[in-house]
Amino acid sequence: MTYAVGMRLDRGLVFMSDTRTNAGVDNISTFKKMFNWTVEGERSITLLAAGNLATTQATVSLLEERTKAPEDRSPSILEAPTMFRVAQRVAETLKDVIERHSRSGQEADSSFHATLILGGQIKGGPSRLFLIYPEGNFIEAGDDTPFFQIGETKYGRPILVRAYDAKMSFPETVKLLLVSFDSTIKANLSVGAPLDLLLYEEDSLTSGTRSRFEVDDVYFRTISEGWSDALKSALSKLPDYNVTPDSSD
Amino acid sequence: MTYAVGMRLDRGLVFMSDTRTNAGVDNISTFKKMFNWTVEGERSITLLAAGNLATTQATVSLLEERTKAPEDRSPSILEAPTMFRVAQRVAETLKDVIERHSRSGQEADSSFHATLILGGQIKGGPSRLFLIYPEGNFIEAGDDTPFFQIGETKYGRPILVRAYDAKMSFPETVKLLLVSFDSTIKANLSVGAPLDLLLYEEDSLTSGTRSRFEVDDVYFRTISEGWSDALKSALSKLPDYNVTPDSSD
Repeated sequence: MTYAVGMRLDRGLVFMSDTRTNAGVDNISTFKKMFNWTVEGERSITLLAAGNLATTQATVSLLEERTKAPEDRSPSILEAPTMFRVAQRVAETLKDVIERHSRSGQEADSSFHATLILGGQIKGGPSRLFLIYPEGNFIEAGDDTPFFQIGETKYGRPILVRAYDAKMSFPETVKLLLVSFDSTIKANLSVGAPLDLLLYEEDSLTSGTRSRFEVDDVYFRTISEGWSDALKSALSKLPDYNVTPDSSD
Repeated sequence: MTYAVGMRLDRGLVFMSDTRTNAGVDNISTFKKMFNWTVEGERSITLLAAGNLATTQATVSLLEERTKAPEDRSPSILEAPTMFRVAQRVAETLKDVIERHSRSGQEADSSFHATLILGGQIKGGPSRLFLIYPEGNFIEAGDDTPFFQIGETKYGRPILVRAYDAKMSFPETVKLLLVSFDSTIKANLSVGAPLDLLLYEEDSLTSGTRSRFEVDDVYFRTISEGWSDALKSALSKLPDYNVTPDSSD
């Protein structure tokens, strides 16, 4: 499993992903699931991947090769004129990879599917954020749905829904995301630290500010341990229920 | 879908369940999923059901009939000497119902499975809480796992894990459960109010205090609306992240 979030804010885009992959609970590894392609001053593209690791690695490798061999028939995401066209190319690549693996006649216990979050900005346009499905179609984040989650999305969703605010600063956003990831990590063994973070400031056209939170990261620990107390204190401020029996048959 | 929770506290047992059932998003109904059998001063047994509605209704009807026709070969849960034996009988009934439906040769889009939470107390023993699987086996709650959830369990789990405390009062517990249910209702259309509540005080051997929270219940609304603000305020009390780039390539 995986847990990854891409978020649109007034200030820019924020991405966070875990790094745990597993084939059964007795076979876990650490793999990066966040990828970035940047041409300084011209474009910055970030990709988060969830699903079959072979599929997502093949997809990323194909995208990567095309950025280095421009004579390739398939055009590079570094040449696409808009983020929409970048999303189309990434989606087509993902669909092709899944089809090729599925057509091989092999049977697998798990499917070859993968889901991607794609975000970034190309000079002359605003930053955009997409969710790409294994079928090769995709949707874009808007004001009503300003963030996308992929992988194990449920445990960490309520806090995002309640506390998301487009006006948040980056430091506040990182805090919110760490709470959401911590809730997920505590509940699902197949999601695990280290966590990768990328903060992309609107119109900066750089690769953004990247960090990695290890399991023993001091700030991550502070949030993880402080959140239980903060929640209890939040609960205690709501009025208690007044137990009055409606029926006592 | 369904969301239901059974919880063991020092003070007794608490049960909450939603009432929405659905066959597709365009076919939803309201059904009670909480059932109670009580012999005042002798035993109190509560059942929560999630899964195929025909299965859970048949199971409850069979249990119900046997409490009224003691000459039936299958012994009644009102005669079982311990809660463990009650759990065995409920589990066998559930397993039989599922097997009968599955054997009929009919195919169904969804499975005939159901999962139950069973809790209660019989004079002379402590209160006990069980989770019963469709296969007819079951596990019991203990100090390490003091509550069970069935149905759509993920959205409402983080707050229970963080805030549960065996020493909680009933009014505090109702508040906590409503927050957990509200998070689930906000995220999954197939879970919905009204919500049924049953508070069973240890050693009372009564049917307990029951209530129903309608969608427009004033207290439920207060919790639902107050929780967003409480969460934001809890988040704001944790220290913000200090954005320092680890790499800016």
